[in-house]
Amino acid sequence: MCAKNVFYAQSGGVTAAINASAAGVIEAAREYPQQINRVYAGRNGIIGALTEDLIDTSAESAGAIAALRQTPAGAFGSARYKLKGLDDNRAEYERLIEVFKAHDIGYFLYNGGGDSADTCLKVSQLADTMGYPIQAIHIPKTMDNDLPHTDCSPGFGSVAKYTAVSIREAGFDLASMCASSTKVFILEVMGRHAGWTAAAGGLAAESEGDSPHIILFPEIAFDADAFLARVDACVKQHGYCTIVASEGARDGNGQFLADAGNSDAFGHTQLGGVAPFLADLIKTRLDYKHHYAVADYLMRAARHIASATDIEQAYAVGRAAVEYAAAGKSGVMVSIKRESDTPYRWTLGEAPLEQVANVEKKMPRDYISTDGFHITAAARRYLQPLIAGEDYPAYVDGLPQYVRLNNVAVARKTGTTFTN
Amino acid sequence: MCAKNVFYAQSGGVTAAINASAAGVIEAAREYPQQINRVYAGRNGIIGALTEDLIDTSAESAGAIAALRQTPAGAFGSARYKLKGLDDNRAEYERLIEVFKAHDIGYFLYNGGGDSADTCLKVSQLADTMGYPIQAIHIPKTMDNDLPHTDCSPGFGSVAKYTAVSIREAGFDLASMCASSTKVFILEVMGRHAGWTAAAGGLAAESEGDSPHIILFPEIAFDADAFLARVDACVKQHGYCTIVASEGARDGNGQFLADAGNSDAFGHTQLGGVAPFLADLIKTRLDYKHHYAVADYLMRAARHIASATDIEQAYAVGRAAVEYAAAGKSGVMVSIKRESDTPYRWTLGEAPLEQVANVEKKMPRDYISTDGFHITAAARRYLQPLIAGEDYPAYVDGLPQYVRLNNVAVARKTGTTFTN
Repeated sequence: MCAKNVFYAQSGGVTAAINASAAGVIEAAREYPQQINRVYAGRNGIIGALTEDLIDTSAESAGAIAALRQTPAGAFGSARYKLKGLDDNRAEYERLIEVFKAHDIGYFLYNGGGDSADTCLKVSQLADTMGYPIQAIHIPKTMDNDLPHTDCSPGFGSVAKYTAVSIREAGFDLASMCASSTKVFILEVMGRHAGWTAAAGGLAAESEGDSPHIILFPEIAFDADAFLARVDACVKQHGYCTIVASEGARDGNGQFLADAGNSDAFGHTQLGGVAPFLADLIKTRLDYKHHYAVADYLMRAARHIASATDIEQAYAVGRAAVEYAAAGKSGVMVSIKRESDTPYRWTLGEAPLEQVANVEKKMPRDYISTDGFHITAAARRYLQPLIAGEDYPAYVDGLPQYVRLNNVAVARKTGTTFTN
Repeated sequence: MCAKNVFYAQSGGVTAAINASAAGVIEAAREYPQQINRVYAGRNGIIGALTEDLIDTSAESAGAIAALRQTPAGAFGSARYKLKGLDDNRAEYERLIEVFKAHDIGYFLYNGGGDSADTCLKVSQLADTMGYPIQAIHIPKTMDNDLPHTDCSPGFGSVAKYTAVSIREAGFDLASMCASSTKVFILEVMGRHAGWTAAAGGLAAESEGDSPHIILFPEIAFDADAFLARVDACVKQHGYCTIVASEGARDGNGQFLADAGNSDAFGHTQLGGVAPFLADLIKTRLDYKHHYAVADYLMRAARHIASATDIEQAYAVGRAAVEYAAAGKSGVMVSIKRESDTPYRWTLGEAPLEQVANVEKKMPRDYISTDGFHITAAARRYLQPLIAGEDYPAYVDGLPQYVRLNNVAVARKTGTTFTN
């Protein structure tokens, strides 16, 4: 058997940990010279395969690859691009095979979430469907934590830590000022479809009265009256109220609150997301002085406050993908298996991509308190280990040193171009 | 001479560093038993003096006081409350003296910004104006960095570091995704009157093309066409554009953009600040996919990413205030004097409160580039040392351990209450 090249690509929204997976892939690949020749990365994800824009990772120094572990976002570029089914777009698959063949690609390692797992599955089937022998392994990544058949998704633990740390800090701020100033603070967090990231904020509340006082989940229909009553009671009891609101919070009809904000009391259009909507509601109905923050990309890029557990797992799933590939596996996702909560112990395993692709892992209802405004002890048991440990990047002159790769292109060989 | 008690209060918006100053005050006070008996803190700032709600800091353990150094926000509560002039509200001063006398207060140590310096000045004059002997020392604190006669204001360095780190991280995120997704990112930062905090974001840009690409300062009148042209050119050149926008950015008439957003293209009212205003403008005029974050209190509470220089200075000015008080000084602010840029060396000194109170230090025009969209080398020389070094809090189970004091009240002695 001749050694083949690896095609590695980053897919979907980037995280603080996905480059740690890339480092795991590239460093592990060097340990399998019998099976693996070079690791080529797709520039801007799978698009790089279609356009034959491949990056030769062997042109990077060992130090640069190691530094990926402490660098947020996607060093090779990522993309939101989902392959259609074979019947719908056969040309795409033919192009992939043309490029893979030209560059002697025998392994497809795809680093992404649920949509990406679907693409990975389709590529794994190319041997059967198109007669091109390739092993496809999925490397889990999503800050949304919604991949099934894995204890968690690398990228999530760091976002979770960011949320919990941030709302704890904001809570101390409010506690200081509430006697004469701001009484309500809202932190809007990403996570359109599931409340995992909002739930993680709940970890900051370890004792009665701790921040956050209220969490708004996409899973619980928003009831303005119940919410306002809770805010009011909280201000009266603690002097202030801190709220973590998922951007995916929605009303009883399933409409996003962010969109509901389209008309205010005067029928006027409003911009903005959940936080300004809630702020306006609190101002109008309770007249409390309030502030809000919108975390947006800051939370998924916040490598400076990454979870050590998360980074370790991200690196490990990257390594494991290479090991699985070298062992002849295909059509699987590397999965994280929890062996125990306390102390937290985990191992790696695999899940068939058929069971992963396009399946969203929802947050269990019993992770949300009965009143719908906070997390339960079961949620804490699950979430806490994922934010454990700090993995600080190196700093120079007060700033974190994140690596920028040279991203040297592999010479094109197909002589053809592709437009979809 | 008998030892007297200290009244210490936190004033105005809190920061990640003000409690480090409190730790400096309380720890230093123990070293002057001949002059200083106890340190009483005002609950909720000066309001605690007026209402005779004093906290006995000697009831806290040495460990708790030491932990203040790594705890954000104001451990005793802060307040936005400015004493009126003696002629306008003599009753307030009489009440202060009543409380000070009852509790044997000989030293007034006030930890705040420009407005607070004015209050501190007025208290320092009580000996002359009301015949009550008291020494008043101002301890500088403001994330806005607008106190004069000091190289910088404790609290600012940490906000500056947060801004630079955050926009660097967001820049890496955009660079990863811009080929197929978000092309413009806006980070809105606090700082209504001066652009210091926005300017600090500029430190993240060390090489051509680095984030942030554009900074919007309150000092530079916003020109929508010039701004949009710059955004467009940036996207065309680098593939994406990152922007740090001061909440105080304003148009040529001095109107805040956040307020200008009051009417959109349809004449409709809009909520939100500068970021949604700019996002709407970019969407309408350039049609680029964009995201924005609003840092708000997260930035001033972000003890997890505090500047070591900032924390060290905050602690030092607290200690120095006690030393100055013990040395018989009054009517001064502890000031930080820069001895050299590289290596950064600083010493402490004093500035007369008459020259500090109500004076805002503006950002020099030569700190802003000629085109008004970035910072100059002079600004970098000034700002860089202030974000240098990391001073991480201790973590347990993945979360920073911030101390909550017992805040034991001192028994009331005046037998009277005060309402203003």
